[in-house]
Amino acid sequence: MLLNIIKIGGNVIDNPVFLAKFLKDFASIGGQKCLVHGGGKVATQVATKLGVETKMVDGRRITDQAMLDVVMMVYGGLINKQIVSQLQANRCNVIGLTGADGGVILAKKRPVKTIDYGFVGDIESVNADFIENLLKQAITPVFAPLTFDMAGSMLNTNADTQASAVAVAMATKQETQLIYCFEKKGVLSNPDDDESVIESINPAYYESLKSQGAIHSGMIPKLDNAFAALNAGVKRVIICHADELQNALTTGLAGTKLVL
Amino acid sequence: MLLNIIKIGGNVIDNPVFLAKFLKDFASIGGQKCLVHGGGKVATQVATKLGVETKMVDGRRITDQAMLDVVMMVYGGLINKQIVSQLQANRCNVIGLTGADGGVILAKKRPVKTIDYGFVGDIESVNADFIENLLKQAITPVFAPLTFDMAGSMLNTNADTQASAVAVAMATKQETQLIYCFEKKGVLSNPDDDESVIESINPAYYESLKSQGAIHSGMIPKLDNAFAALNAGVKRVIICHADELQNALTTGLAGTKLVL
Repeated sequence: MLLNIIKIGGNVIDNPVFLAKFLKDFASIGGQKCLVHGGGKVATQVATKLGVETKMVDGRRITDQAMLDVVMMVYGGLINKQIVSQLQANRCNVIGLTGADGGVILAKKRPVKTIDYGFVGDIESVNADFIENLLKQAITPVFAPLTFDMAGSMLNTNADTQASAVAVAMATKQETQLIYCFEKKGVLSNPDDDESVIESINPAYYESLKSQGAIHSGMIPKLDNAFAALNAGVKRVIICHADELQNALTTGLAGTKLVL
Repeated sequence: MLLNIIKIGGNVIDNPVFLAKFLKDFASIGGQKCLVHGGGKVATQVATKLGVETKMVDGRRITDQAMLDVVMMVYGGLINKQIVSQLQANRCNVIGLTGADGGVILAKKRPVKTIDYGFVGDIESVNADFIENLLKQAITPVFAPLTFDMAGSMLNTNADTQASAVAVAMATKQETQLIYCFEKKGVLSNPDDDESVIESINPAYYESLKSQGAIHSGMIPKLDNAFAALNAGVKRVIICHADELQNALTTGLAGTKLVL
């Protein structure tokens, strides 16, 4: 059975109307599926109110102990449970998970090289049996972007990477498709033109777009994660607008398809 | 197989040293078990920093939308994931759950009579099959005091009541014991004397202690929940100090035993 691993980005989560629509669409997808959600701006807002300074390096959050508490609260508590309760209301039986729950995603704290990212986790392993067991019970996992280290600490983890790691682990068990949903229509050949959606992209074309500067900043780790997933056995990767999830899954005529 | 449902109160959660010791003890308990945790003072502290006013009536938190967001963050995120990650570090494979996760504890928003408690849930049903399935996989549920209403909202729920409801539901499946762990040595015959622990209490004795005023405030709902559990088929209820969990479970010579 085809398994869809769907990642929803922070910009959609930040807008209650967009999020509600997306969750309704997600709930209506037939078959087996997992959701991985990002963080959104709420963590930064809560941190500011709590007097915790937000420090970003290359779009990545520096996570000291105080910021770890904030992301545990916002990602693991507020956002995850908002999504879980709304999906239950849409009659989609879900379970909210961080990596620590059921020991499902083990990570290790990123070693300090030039930058100390703090409590940031690099994924070491995903327990595919545990996920498979939930799916067999018709329970849909909803992952918050948090992992753990088996030494007593939670770790902040990039949601795109987490979605890719879950897809790769599940691809050892069944046919798996990875869909990144965000606020753009797909990968753009011209970042200033929202309509310049690339229908299909392979590694060579990706390299050429990167060298031209057409793809930059946040899109690079997303595409790196996506190609890594394809290389590791995930059948298909699609990057599309959150509004087009259903089109992407049914007609395939939405967003950007990644191919090898 | 005997199932132990253990509730840990807010005062222990507020102290990292006490909590770490308790979690180590909890991890070392053999056999099947569940943990239900309370809230602690952190929710009030976070609420204050976020500019959300804390209103209590008879020891119960009034939960408006802003306070619901706070308890979702603190109970469902921060405290639950601190406990989950520490138990994983103690090699106890746990899963953190709110009532919405797996649809395990359904509640309804408390009707407004004289007091509007806001987003407070009265438990309607517990999915014992789901809990049993986790236990069979040797996964220990860790419940945050939150439930949901199937209409898209999370609900704040008293942890003592939740522990009792889980114990009652599980008692239909297997022999179940309920242990309330808190910062006192048990039920006291003299609330000013911490050593006046009552070894055993039945409903008649409870009524007489209540009428004398020896048992009051927060202990009354705790004991009401405890006797309700016994009446509904839970084999044994013990109220003891968090430090004495292991004694209570092995020798039975700790805390107060409730009998019918």
